[in-house]
Amino acid sequence: MTAASDAPQVRIDGLQYCNWSREIFREMRQGGLTAVHATVGYHEGFRETVRHLVDWRTRFRDNEDLILLARDSGDIERARATNRTAIFLGLQNPMPIEDDIGLIEMLFDLGIRFMQLTYNNQSLLGCGWMEKEDSGVTRMGREAIAEMNRLGMIIDLSHAGERTALEAISLSQRPVVISHANPRWLCDSNRNVSRTVLQALRQQQGLLGLSLYPLHLPNGSDTTLRQFGEMAAEAAQIMGAEHLGIGSDLCQGQPDSVVRWMREGRWTRQAQAAASFPPQPSWFGSNLDFPKVSEGLRSAGFGEAETSFVLGAAWHRFITVSLPSAV
Amino acid sequence: MTAASDAPQVRIDGLQYCNWSREIFREMRQGGLTAVHATVGYHEGFRETVRHLVDWRTRFRDNEDLILLARDSGDIERARATNRTAIFLGLQNPMPIEDDIGLIEMLFDLGIRFMQLTYNNQSLLGCGWMEKEDSGVTRMGREAIAEMNRLGMIIDLSHAGERTALEAISLSQRPVVISHANPRWLCDSNRNVSRTVLQALRQQQGLLGLSLYPLHLPNGSDTTLRQFGEMAAEAAQIMGAEHLGIGSDLCQGQPDSVVRWMREGRWTRQAQAAASFPPQPSWFGSNLDFPKVSEGLRSAGFGEAETSFVLGAAWHRFITVSLPSAV
Repeated sequence: MTAASDAPQVRIDGLQYCNWSREIFREMRQGGLTAVHATVGYHEGFRETVRHLVDWRTRFRDNEDLILLARDSGDIERARATNRTAIFLGLQNPMPIEDDIGLIEMLFDLGIRFMQLTYNNQSLLGCGWMEKEDSGVTRMGREAIAEMNRLGMIIDLSHAGERTALEAISLSQRPVVISHANPRWLCDSNRNVSRTVLQALRQQQGLLGLSLYPLHLPNGSDTTLRQFGEMAAEAAQIMGAEHLGIGSDLCQGQPDSVVRWMREGRWTRQAQAAASFPPQPSWFGSNLDFPKVSEGLRSAGFGEAETSFVLGAAWHRFITVSLPSAV
Repeated sequence: MTAASDAPQVRIDGLQYCNWSREIFREMRQGGLTAVHATVGYHEGFRETVRHLVDWRTRFRDNEDLILLARDSGDIERARATNRTAIFLGLQNPMPIEDDIGLIEMLFDLGIRFMQLTYNNQSLLGCGWMEKEDSGVTRMGREAIAEMNRLGMIIDLSHAGERTALEAISLSQRPVVISHANPRWLCDSNRNVSRTVLQALRQQQGLLGLSLYPLHLPNGSDTTLRQFGEMAAEAAQIMGAEHLGIGSDLCQGQPDSVVRWMREGRWTRQAQAAASFPPQPSWFGSNLDFPKVSEGLRSAGFGEAETSFVLGAAWHRFITVSLPSAV
């Protein structure tokens, strides 16, 4: 056996937005999570986002035995070597950069490593999946893509409209991700990803993180582990397991006011549909359940190496290639 | 001759607030400046300060053959090795941290390495020299000093009141600086520094940067280079040349609206006294004149090693000891 195979397997969750607590960080350790991409905010502007980042610094200090702020793949190794979880920070909306391209670099320096171009609605950069008309990547969107490419901030196309996603994939000089979504033909929501987008993503060496959020799953909250595995197998047919990961979209401990915040932000006075969290699938309620996902994959015919890719090795490789080393 | 003595002498200016341009950065090179501490702002809040920092990033990119953003003493070496000037960024007022202690770390991560606790007026942290009553370091001021000590952001007591300065020197666990001021007994303004404060500063291994701003000089704009040298000699009697530097307060190319901004900010509707820049001493109008300062020091009896300290070696040593290495 080599030293590498003695080391614990790399397990990475490509998206969570939990009601963060020491208990949840403990569960990350118990579930063997090497790294997690954590959402910092949705509709917050720059100043509010910085406040969230300050809160994250406090969390890192208060829980330094369990987690660390991750800036590059070296921090995944550091987390592994010290039995902690590396937390990558990201934004699900470009609101924090306002209309100021220079703020991308400021947020990068403050630790942000992922940003979505859009969240459901039209943004300054592109169009979200809930608009009737997707007019694609905007003038500022092209600048933001170039700037994110320059810095090495990872472009996330979750929640984007079809045209915006295709244009962004084509415009980006670096591979992009869809951190948390599923094949659309297995669960028909425009929030999920079409075959066309997946093929473009694959061609550009991008990564898809499979979502465990009930509304993205083929049978909602009742989706079985086996059904999840079968969905993963379909995705792997296009992406290959080496470009497939998990982006669980775990929102553990969040009250329903948070799902309303996600959907309504401050942009509407109307209550939006289904403003409560659906029950999680019985087999995935917390980070403790993360290793179980491999059973679903194995039952759908994934081999050992393929399962390793989906559970974390694919994200690990993507991050290693994408994020510039801090040193 | 050793390799070190072959290298160009380290020249450091501990404070400038010029109307930055490529021409001024060229003059820094021609004047042999290894490093400059540049003021980013005075009365700006957090968001405006970040905009200034974005402007600085643009300057660094547009002039990367002349200057670089300095975060630690390694960047002084890098500047020296590549014939550029290392620019350290600082704030003359704690307005940018608002009432949020966490913003100190955010600004540190964005490149800020110096911060004054106060600028003329009472601040949230302490008292400036122009208030009638100096009630010393505030509750938040104590927290800010501890936080700056933790991070390695340098505390600058220029513009502080007497009591605030003495308390801050005593509270800080690390040496502090007064980046741009002169001995008060040679130019009687409370903006200058009393013997008591200088002695406390020296005892704590702090640094005084001698100002070349006419209002701080013994004979205003008519102060001769020799008079400046004599003043430096008096300061050296207390501080020792190894704790003495230059903080020229050069405001080259700034219109008078800027001196009004410094004095009036947004806190008053009344025009403040002398809201125009006085003429510079004839022997110091730009970075080109920086090397000339050594003539004044030599004429007042400074030896070669002492002159080297004041022209930059003292600042160099202080920065090396004070700023944490980025790696």
